[in-house]
Amino acid sequence: MRTTVGIIGAGPAGLLLARLLYRAGIDSVVLESRDRAYVEQRQRAGILEQGTVDVLRAAGAGERMDREGLRHDGVELRYDRTRHRVDFPALTGGRSVTVYAQTEVCKDLIALQLKEGHPLMFEAEALAVEDADTDHPRVRFRTEGREEVLECDYVVGCDGHWGVARKAIPEQLTRTFERTYPFAWLGILADVPPSHDELVYARHDRGFALLSMRSPSVSRLYLQVPEGTDPESWPDDAIWAELERRFETDDDWRLARGPITQKSVTPMRSYVHEPMRHGRLFLAGDAAHIVPPTGAKGLNLAVGDVVTFARALTYERETGSAELLDGYSATCLRRVWQAERFSCDMTTLLHRAPDATPFEDRLQLARLARIASSRAAGTDLAEAYTGFPFG
Amino acid sequence: MRTTVGIIGAGPAGLLLARLLYRAGIDSVVLESRDRAYVEQRQRAGILEQGTVDVLRAAGAGERMDREGLRHDGVELRYDRTRHRVDFPALTGGRSVTVYAQTEVCKDLIALQLKEGHPLMFEAEALAVEDADTDHPRVRFRTEGREEVLECDYVVGCDGHWGVARKAIPEQLTRTFERTYPFAWLGILADVPPSHDELVYARHDRGFALLSMRSPSVSRLYLQVPEGTDPESWPDDAIWAELERRFETDDDWRLARGPITQKSVTPMRSYVHEPMRHGRLFLAGDAAHIVPPTGAKGLNLAVGDVVTFARALTYERETGSAELLDGYSATCLRRVWQAERFSCDMTTLLHRAPDATPFEDRLQLARLARIASSRAAGTDLAEAYTGFPFG
Repeated sequence: MRTTVGIIGAGPAGLLLARLLYRAGIDSVVLESRDRAYVEQRQRAGILEQGTVDVLRAAGAGERMDREGLRHDGVELRYDRTRHRVDFPALTGGRSVTVYAQTEVCKDLIALQLKEGHPLMFEAEALAVEDADTDHPRVRFRTEGREEVLECDYVVGCDGHWGVARKAIPEQLTRTFERTYPFAWLGILADVPPSHDELVYARHDRGFALLSMRSPSVSRLYLQVPEGTDPESWPDDAIWAELERRFETDDDWRLARGPITQKSVTPMRSYVHEPMRHGRLFLAGDAAHIVPPTGAKGLNLAVGDVVTFARALTYERETGSAELLDGYSATCLRRVWQAERFSCDMTTLLHRAPDATPFEDRLQLARLARIASSRAAGTDLAEAYTGFPFG
Repeated sequence: MRTTVGIIGAGPAGLLLARLLYRAGIDSVVLESRDRAYVEQRQRAGILEQGTVDVLRAAGAGERMDREGLRHDGVELRYDRTRHRVDFPALTGGRSVTVYAQTEVCKDLIALQLKEGHPLMFEAEALAVEDADTDHPRVRFRTEGREEVLECDYVVGCDGHWGVARKAIPEQLTRTFERTYPFAWLGILADVPPSHDELVYARHDRGFALLSMRSPSVSRLYLQVPEGTDPESWPDDAIWAELERRFETDDDWRLARGPITQKSVTPMRSYVHEPMRHGRLFLAGDAAHIVPPTGAKGLNLAVGDVVTFARALTYERETGSAELLDGYSATCLRRVWQAERFSCDMTTLLHRAPDATPFEDRLQLARLARIASSRAAGTDLAEAYTGFPFG
């Protein structure tokens, strides 16, 4: 097989890239190791930055998002039994975010791709990227029990943290940056209307909690738990009781309970791989970087990466200049590091480390009080949350 | 002896408080364990917030400061061989800071106090504060070889971190908060005009450096060194060479050398004692809280504390209500914790911890890039640096 751009992975990065390239008249093939049902059910992020919404819409993939997505003009910070709303449009000159689950983005992009796009192969497992530093990179992959080769002009690894693409970059050219956190998120889906119409980020002496939603009738809630927690060790009643304590306020706000339909534990990690490009192999999304979910940046970073690649390749097609392709890694990494910084800061601001000192507890409260009382500090947060510009 | 307000310590907090009370027609006695020459030579901070300048001026203690102090409208952040200026008035609506050494503030206040103030006793060593929780607190002190007692209506402990005042607050009523840092500052005074007309805060892989000044002809420079460093272990040439490396830029900026007239090492610590009041004993300045010097907040916090106390006591005199006196601790602590937060953040932003990971190095650079590129982030820093409001 032969194509212009070989894309490994049909997560949001790979699917959106295929869409962007299709619209630009550039051939691609997407290889995805899992089947369609699996990809369409993976629960992941759900907050789309303004820039992400704009890209999806411009790519003709925004119809259902515009119908079903929930525009959010702020988030609530809850601490010390008090509530502070961060008003995004007021602080950023009109920007907001949209709640629309990553799963739904993937479903929309898959449907479009199968209807009018270039090949998207499920159960096609990439085994290795070869000759990345030549003009003829190739992806070896396995499908229907046999090995095949995809010959490409470019390969984009959108295959996540555990994928094979990153391994094709020689170790001696690579620097990795990492932080682990001694806690995780226990996440639930519950069939109950969300108890607040915007996200609530709660800092509590017992640990962080987050109230989010998938739709007007489905709540998504998270509890900070120790690293390595087994989700089945938390009975439903215990989850609700703990959520109630962490969201406590001095007013009459109440958390509504409902049937829990899914439980899972998400580990927390910060990770960056430099560079994000080697020859004609480009990394995008989780293949190159991981953020803890607190800043809701993972999906949005992936979108920034593939937009940057699609623009760079289009520019090369139009002008013959590889300048933007050559600058891909540096361009993406500037935005990646801002998102890493913000995600790390939000995590540190709101979570309680097992070895937290009383001094650190007071610092968290002072930081929250600063955000609540200074327009500059509130704006800094609102700008980062609604998204850094692409490129 | 008897007075209305017994003040322990003739640092800037005690001296300014005596001055404010004198102007309000309230008696005081200042007890200082050292002699006048010692107090007038201690090298300490040198950055006065706008609010501190305003208070000194209003207290009639601003004449020489207005003549000799240097108004600074910004600071420079230096990192990765680049320079970014934080423009205070542009970001804060006109605020700035003044470079005028704490030693000079003390000299001015001592001269005024001896000329027209209430008693200021040198070599009078406070031994203990007694009966703080009654209407008749007392300070036992030693002067000219004998013990005396100062009977007071109120006692204000301005006697620094190692003073006796804090010890009169029962331990079971007390919470302390602390952070130590695994590095210190080697500070020098040098007879050479400063190489830049504003302060330069440098983040470097080899460690932090700060260029500051005492006057147009005297430079004050600092190097991050390991905790417990002996200043005599650094020959003058080695200090200049290290400063040059840490201040390196891509342009033709050069550091001017000159004779070093003083060397010392300052430890770095964050410390807060809660509450700052017990009965009729009030703590002010370093007696209640310590900040690392990176944010230039120590002296300015002390000024805020004594202004708050003087206002509260004046209010009690005028209205008979102890409301502001009762609120002293909570009022001061709100500002104290903002300064603790800022000092800790500035320290973390610019210093290299001995165990810093590559991830943390990149985070520092991302934070600095954010300050340099976002008006909101720059304003947040400029507001904090030029000072939080009193009370």
